[in-house]
Amino acid sequence: MTRVAILGATGYTGIELIRLLNDHPEIELIFAGSESQAGNALSDIHPQFRGREDLILNRMQVEKIPPAAEIIFCALPHGRSVQIVPELLENSFKVIDLSADFRLKRIDLYKQWYGYEHPFPALLGEAVYGLTELNKKAVSAGQLIANPGCYPTSIILALAPLMDNNLIEGDSIIVDAKSGVSGAGRAPKQPFHFPECAENFKAYRVANHQHTPEIEQELSHLRGSDTIVTFTPHLVPMIRGILSTIYLDMKSQKPEQELRSLYHNYYEKCPFVRIMDEKTMPETRFVRGSNYIDIGLKMDQRTGRLVVISAIDNLIKGAAGQAVQNMNIMLGYQENTGLGQLPC
Amino acid sequence: MTRVAILGATGYTGIELIRLLNDHPEIELIFAGSESQAGNALSDIHPQFRGREDLILNRMQVEKIPPAAEIIFCALPHGRSVQIVPELLENSFKVIDLSADFRLKRIDLYKQWYGYEHPFPALLGEAVYGLTELNKKAVSAGQLIANPGCYPTSIILALAPLMDNNLIEGDSIIVDAKSGVSGAGRAPKQPFHFPECAENFKAYRVANHQHTPEIEQELSHLRGSDTIVTFTPHLVPMIRGILSTIYLDMKSQKPEQELRSLYHNYYEKCPFVRIMDEKTMPETRFVRGSNYIDIGLKMDQRTGRLVVISAIDNLIKGAAGQAVQNMNIMLGYQENTGLGQLPC
Amino acid sequence: MTRVAILGATGYTGIELIRLLNDHPEIELIFAGSESQAGNALSDIHPQFRGREDLILNRMQVEKIPPAAEIIFCALPHGRSVQIVPELLENSFKVIDLSADFRLKRIDLYKQWYGYEHPFPALLGEAVYGLTELNKKAVSAGQLIANPGCYPTSIILALAPLMDNNLIEGDSIIVDAKSGVSGAGRAPKQPFHFPECAENFKAYRVANHQHTPEIEQELSHLRGSDTIVTFTPHLVPMIRGILSTIYLDMKSQKPEQELRSLYHNYYEKCPFVRIMDEKTMPETRFVRGSNYIDIGLKMDQRTGRLVVISAIDNLIKGAAGQAVQNMNIMLGYQENTGLGQLPC
Amino acid sequence: MTRVAILGATGYTGIELIRLLNDHPEIELIFAGSESQAGNALSDIHPQFRGREDLILNRMQVEKIPPAAEIIFCALPHGRSVQIVPELLENSFKVIDLSADFRLKRIDLYKQWYGYEHPFPALLGEAVYGLTELNKKAVSAGQLIANPGCYPTSIILALAPLMDNNLIEGDSIIVDAKSGVSGAGRAPKQPFHFPECAENFKAYRVANHQHTPEIEQELSHLRGSDTIVTFTPHLVPMIRGILSTIYLDMKSQKPEQELRSLYHNYYEKCPFVRIMDEKTMPETRFVRGSNYIDIGLKMDQRTGRLVVISAIDNLIKGAAGQAVQNMNIMLGYQENTGLGQLPC
Repeated sequence: MTRVAILGATGYTGIELIRLLNDHPEIELIFAGSESQAGNALSDIHPQFRGREDLILNRMQVEKIPPAAEIIFCALPHGRSVQIVPELLENSFKVIDLSADFRLKRIDLYKQWYGYEHPFPALLGEAVYGLTELNKKAVSAGQLIANPGCYPTSIILALAPLMDNNLIEGDSIIVDAKSGVSGAGRAPKQPFHFPECAENFKAYRVANHQHTPEIEQELSHLRGSDTIVTFTPHLVPMIRGILSTIYLDMKSQKPEQELRSLYHNYYEKCPFVRIMDEKTMPETRFVRGSNYIDIGLKMDQRTGRLVVISAIDNLIKGAAGQAVQNMNIMLGYQENTGLGQLPC
Repeated sequence: MTRVAILGATGYTGIELIRLLNDHPEIELIFAGSESQAGNALSDIHPQFRGREDLILNRMQVEKIPPAAEIIFCALPHGRSVQIVPELLENSFKVIDLSADFRLKRIDLYKQWYGYEHPFPALLGEAVYGLTELNKKAVSAGQLIANPGCYPTSIILALAPLMDNNLIEGDSIIVDAKSGVSGAGRAPKQPFHFPECAENFKAYRVANHQHTPEIEQELSHLRGSDTIVTFTPHLVPMIRGILSTIYLDMKSQKPEQELRSLYHNYYEKCPFVRIMDEKTMPETRFVRGSNYIDIGLKMDQRTGRLVVISAIDNLIKGAAGQAVQNMNIMLGYQENTGLGQLPC
Repeated sequence: MTRVAILGATGYTGIELIRLLNDHPEIELIFAGSESQAGNALSDIHPQFRGREDLILNRMQVEKIPPAAEIIFCALPHGRSVQIVPELLENSFKVIDLSADFRLKRIDLYKQWYGYEHPFPALLGEAVYGLTELNKKAVSAGQLIANPGCYPTSIILALAPLMDNNLIEGDSIIVDAKSGVSGAGRAPKQPFHFPECAENFKAYRVANHQHTPEIEQELSHLRGSDTIVTFTPHLVPMIRGILSTIYLDMKSQKPEQELRSLYHNYYEKCPFVRIMDEKTMPETRFVRGSNYIDIGLKMDQRTGRLVVISAIDNLIKGAAGQAVQNMNIMLGYQENTGLGQLPC
Repeated sequence: MTRVAILGATGYTGIELIRLLNDHPEIELIFAGSESQAGNALSDIHPQFRGREDLILNRMQVEKIPPAAEIIFCALPHGRSVQIVPELLENSFKVIDLSADFRLKRIDLYKQWYGYEHPFPALLGEAVYGLTELNKKAVSAGQLIANPGCYPTSIILALAPLMDNNLIEGDSIIVDAKSGVSGAGRAPKQPFHFPECAENFKAYRVANHQHTPEIEQELSHLRGSDTIVTFTPHLVPMIRGILSTIYLDMKSQKPEQELRSLYHNYYEKCPFVRIMDEKTMPETRFVRGSNYIDIGLKMDQRTGRLVVISAIDNLIKGAAGQAVQNMNIMLGYQENTGLGQLPC
């Protein structure tokens, strides 16, 4: 048994981590920190855990975390993680950080997109971008893993085989993405109040979403040259799920089936990537509650454009599930240990 | 044209009032007060009004209300209304108050159920309980109308023909009521955050909801003797609508059809009360967006119990629509003027 | 009072027509035909109409329609309308057809996209494409109005000012559209069964939706040269509403504000087109239940692409509302008579 | 490994069985029969299973089932199961039947409530009512298990401690139950078409639901004397979950805490029954996706009535999960083997 801790245990990614780790045969959760709920039993706040995970929430101080913890999951808001992670690293903990605070390599992007000066630029170089399928070797050796954002996960994995083989016109990428409301976190706010977002559909932060530089950084890295994207997120009246519809111009036309083979080969050893056949397109319900990403391809013969569609559960493959997947790699377990949940 | 004002214009009952009054051929809205949004255009905050009702929101001070306003709608939270209504009355305005602050006749009930000492007990005697169908004469002469609560409206109208004819065992009444989320108001709170209440169903404030004394007061008044009810509200993952399922023991058994006739006669002159036939039961969608209350009856032959089911739109017949209906009575207009919206 | 008739009165567009016409001060509905429900009272099948529109549904035979009917609304499925409209025209009725059967000018497109040989090609030339804002003169003189599809309405109006001024690269148009489930009609089918589409989001008919040629026909007409689009519809777990997110390359860059002015001028006399300001983007709830189309513009400075977003209620501006708007034009009423419903 | 088969593999209870069995460490599914989809791969019809359970669906003939199958799950509609179960028993298979066809002991009730003459009355005596918590011994020895209905499970377990101790006035029981839409099965029908049941709430089959005699049979058995209930089911716009709100008169008043202790003791050895404390009431989301039943108690001090509220996932504890629980008992596994799914 490996012992782990969670900081930020009562938000949506925190409780999803607890749910997944509870189902993991090799892991014992020995510490759960919460800023707002320290002293309370987890199962009093989240009664779904009653009888299964009744631990008492701790104050979120590094000195309180038992040294036996081998990995610390930080499920804290952006800007809060960066304040505590350096201290965790100094104490020789391995850290999987689920915030955006260590995902970007260029320090100026934090000012531009997140509105704060990054206080620890050196750590940006050390952090490993934990998109598991693409970075297994680095993840296995990393001390600080920057767990990817939900939208970026759905988009980068959907495009990696094409970018890695340089098949795309670099300035042609348009991403129209749609997310369930849990992506906005657990703190109640006006736009996510039930009567404001049920029976409603809207775009938000058009041409201005903070995940844009993360997507571009990784696509540029895969393609080997600068790549920009037009990215429009939308809010869907459902709890979980992201569907990204991506439009591309290819450098040269290829039959849909050849592309499908390319994807199959590229992700041959990836248990959580499923390539749909020509009769099927991804739907968020087919991945809900699981760590899968489903990817579908459609060549629009009339316009010559390729449409790539991916679906994930934003809280699992887009957050907690991928964090556990990274943990498995770091600890030398099978990549899918404890992640066998079927969609529900 | 009659001029009116609204205080508390940006909450759900406030904007519903504005929507209804905009459609009213005899009314001009000349003042809209808002605590939090004064200085902003209504249609900037609620873009559905763009091009139709673009007035600027005012600070909520009595001296700012133009004396030409004949009726003031108070769509303020409980406890806030009571602070401003007396001043409005002193200034000779007629007031339709949509809060609970003037609905109860016994002052001690405010302490017990709402948690505050009522500062103006004399006004409780003057206020007219504005359940239009039952109190038209008093409403037409009133200066202060206490507009009924949403649950009480759905329950009292569903039972009035039986209570008024003393057909019910007084201690047998069980009300199992279900409301859409807009009933909780517009301020974002954890239980009404989309991911917490979508794909969920729950009871709340079991045996402890503040509408209980209002229901009992009016049922006792109708029956002519003290009446208590077991009342359990539930939260439905929908925006609008209340369905109340009510269980009763009758003093003596009567055929379902005879009871249906009794209801038809009782509400003969009430344009917004619809009695369902034996093949149909109320559903909230059949009244959504309208001022109707639909009432269905079913005698459970096996147990001898009567089941009465009613459906309303909580924001309309349960709040703003009934307020406009009361206004029509007070001003001598046809009761249904401006209230012809069909369910949508 | 003008008398009208509806064929196909019990589907979603049919009952929406009845709802709107009931609210219309100048119209009397004298005949409602239904294939499946003839002989039943409308309000038995759709209890929302109880007490307001209790007419008995008729068999759908042309000889049964009273000659006094000046306009016949055909709210029948594609392929069914084409069988009855010619007979209606022969009997000198004016017809507003809400199906796709007369929208396309090129007969071969019916075979290609709808799968049937059009039996009356001559009528395709006579039919007026009833996108009211763009074709008022022709509508006012027409005998057969082809009421536009829901997606095309949301897309063509969103692009008309740009196309009409030839500002767009003709092969750059990508439309990512999202519709509520009522767009699929009232007949129950597996993909629209509640447990299959609630808490789910998906694309469907990718690069293959039958509204594509209608969109292209009208955009080509506006621009004056052939135009093709990549069009991807999606299904949103809500009842009503379409949001279309449209990506464009402009021939030359223009400031967002200049484009916004262009839109304001273009639609100056159009009471149902609302151009959002720079702080606001359309949401489907802001138009739900109304005949409005809201249009927002955003220039993605980083990529140089223009993003245009429009929102409509698919059953109103996308179907029944536009049909009533066309009827008003044909009969010489004010364009917005009976269409004042505010979003709800 | 134990081998099992499923008949009726593509309905909601069938696919939920497949999901649960896939997660069961001791079970191998070797045969899945489907009336409508024989010959197709399960994962083509239900893509959530892709890569995890790709078996080909078989025709539903007894002779095709491999004799190695130790248990056959029948997840067929009422009236269809009774046609195939006798042949399965003759072939010495053990059967867990999820339909209602073997739940009732009195043959006349099938005619009265289900509308058909039961062709095998002798089997009604042999069948074991598989409400696991109450019938473990009989289940472990049974050859034919009648798996309980979803509503009855939520109600009988909620009342068993009180009935078994004869604490309730036998004619006082009122059950107001609410179910998600998946309870209606997977076949598309008008009332469950998304636009008809989203944003809607209604009662159905008032005083007339076919689960009534099943509830009464088991409550009577527990109490030792005839017991009747008033039972009103409602439809909630959510996919999964049942919440039952039950009103009772007690023979003599007891403190709420004493009753809570009674429940704790009664279900001491039952891993799936959770008794809420006084601060918490059940919500369907706290059990969604799991085999738990959560039970809450509230004494209405003012009226002297006891309110008992229970929550289950209708497809799991109300169907497939309880079937697996019964299977575990029959095969001598730990009761909760393979049923550790936490709510999601």
